[in-house]
Amino acid sequence: MTSQMRAEIGEQPDALARTIGALLPRLPELAALAAETRQVLFIARGSSDNAAVYGRYLVESHTGRLATLAAPSIATAYRRRLDLAGVLAVAISQSGKTEEIVESLAWAAACGARTVAVTNGAGSPLAESAEVALITLAGDEIAVPATKTYTTQLAALSVLGLGLGAAVPADDLRRVPDEVARVIARTEASPALPEIVEALAAVPGAVVSGRGIAFGTALELALKIKEACYLHAMGLSYADLLHGPIAVVDEQTPALLVAADSGPTLAGTIALAERVEGAGARAYGVGGGPLLAAACSAALPGPALPEWTSPLGLIVPGQIMVENLARRLGLDPDVPRGLNKVTQTN
Amino acid sequence: MTSQMRAEIGEQPDALARTIGALLPRLPELAALAAETRQVLFIARGSSDNAAVYGRYLVESHTGRLATLAAPSIATAYRRRLDLAGVLAVAISQSGKTEEIVESLAWAAACGARTVAVTNGAGSPLAESAEVALITLAGDEIAVPATKTYTTQLAALSVLGLGLGAAVPADDLRRVPDEVARVIARTEASPALPEIVEALAAVPGAVVSGRGIAFGTALELALKIKEACYLHAMGLSYADLLHGPIAVVDEQTPALLVAADSGPTLAGTIALAERVEGAGARAYGVGGGPLLAAACSAALPGPALPEWTSPLGLIVPGQIMVENLARRLGLDPDVPRGLNKVTQTN
Repeated sequence: MTSQMRAEIGEQPDALARTIGALLPRLPELAALAAETRQVLFIARGSSDNAAVYGRYLVESHTGRLATLAAPSIATAYRRRLDLAGVLAVAISQSGKTEEIVESLAWAAACGARTVAVTNGAGSPLAESAEVALITLAGDEIAVPATKTYTTQLAALSVLGLGLGAAVPADDLRRVPDEVARVIARTEASPALPEIVEALAAVPGAVVSGRGIAFGTALELALKIKEACYLHAMGLSYADLLHGPIAVVDEQTPALLVAADSGPTLAGTIALAERVEGAGARAYGVGGGPLLAAACSAALPGPALPEWTSPLGLIVPGQIMVENLARRLGLDPDVPRGLNKVTQTN
Repeated sequence: MTSQMRAEIGEQPDALARTIGALLPRLPELAALAAETRQVLFIARGSSDNAAVYGRYLVESHTGRLATLAAPSIATAYRRRLDLAGVLAVAISQSGKTEEIVESLAWAAACGARTVAVTNGAGSPLAESAEVALITLAGDEIAVPATKTYTTQLAALSVLGLGLGAAVPADDLRRVPDEVARVIARTEASPALPEIVEALAAVPGAVVSGRGIAFGTALELALKIKEACYLHAMGLSYADLLHGPIAVVDEQTPALLVAADSGPTLAGTIALAERVEGAGARAYGVGGGPLLAAACSAALPGPALPEWTSPLGLIVPGQIMVENLARRLGLDPDVPRGLNKVTQTN
């Protein structure tokens, strides 16, 4: 039996192609905002916050602008004005209706920021309130765990990176949809998929780690495991893992390590896999090419994409793993307990 | 039998008094840097990173300056220059010797930032490289889990907040050491201490949550539980907990909720405790006054301090709880597996 979540995972190639096709023509509008700002402030929660982590690393590593994830409580609880002159505020929300995010973007504008919205909600309060609205064309998402709305957010943030001057070819982005289709097929055919699902079904928790441009993917995979499978999954950067929590990795707590097939953080991720396995614990890879796979007990192949667009495909094997793991645990991946599709933070 | 960690917890009142006395006279130097900058970039890892989270919320909520936690991999892995004109870079490291942090502060200076170091290492490479070095006077810390070096870092960041113009009385800070001594005595006399320790000894993991100025305390408590007790402790902001991971809170996964006795995030923390208990799971409080205690299964009293200095005392009941829990689990709190006192990130 399959799930709505699995169906929506399969809709990602089309959703990405539509979104990328619609948003690349918006580059001149973004470039105009870029010329009037010096840095970026992302405003988001949940899966959208993990998308923002990708945006943050992409903007910093490829455009030379400082990028920050906002603390919405400063706007909504402390109600403190900040000096946001020269700041481009980018709010990300699947629905475009989460009041805290809408309110925080209005606060940023009142503090002097220029504004962009990234949302699947055309005509939503968030879309209507921003100077430039990048509407993702994911279509309706029914399953509670975000899949196609998340990857299309990443596509919108890739376009933002181009608009802010990243010196990478836009054609890299046009290659993504077909590669995501190939990743889905490769993941479902991989013998590593049932092996990792069985391993995770037998443990109370896991650590999920990635670094740099892959860090947001690690956080998103950890969130998916928590919300759909109720495992104690901790999303940690490679470096933070070494500063304390490495102590929790043991026979009962495997590490899931996420990496692009190239880039300056790959070598450290491979070294981390070797350290985890050397300590008698299990490391499972997602992406990272043959060298990461060789250092792990098992690995799911990632997308054949350059590092800067790799997160758009790198989460996909993780989504499929989570959907399989939830069903293996007797859970309904479409409707996790305690969650609604639009979350309001009081 | 007691531990080195417990001894160092007890040294905090003296360490805080020395540090606060030494650093308050440095306010004019900080004010001079403040006049030449518009925002703050914190550079840190591990417990120091949790201290930086306090610094970030303090700076934003009380001085109106945007504050960011740096992604050190941008400096050390991607080796990308950012535009840091008008930025005050504040590097935090217990030893002052962690190469990644020293290298990242040098990178920030090369990118145009002004520089401050917060470190317990007088004469360390980090202290020597910064324009203003705020040396904490914690004395030698032997136990691997940071306690007095962490709270004295918070003291230094409180002084930084004053130097950046926070409109709060410096006398609030001078009251902290005596109040921390009282918190230690109250915690050890509290019947909630053995109750919470026994509850945590029986579960595989816990969620630790706090919001705004208490968020860094929640992250630090989660880190301590992970590194000294090997529990799967997830540190989450109040709002992030509602966006997915609330699904993991159940009979086997209690929530530890941390709050100051006052401030705009207290009401939401109490509401979260009620929601957790209403769902059949256990909520345990740290601080938050009588209203949070009433909403929880058990609660450790926090410090009687205004919100802005409360984190200097709010972690202390958590430190004592962690030290007790480690010994209850048959672990040596002083020497967690897999960790060294100075961590080098490759």
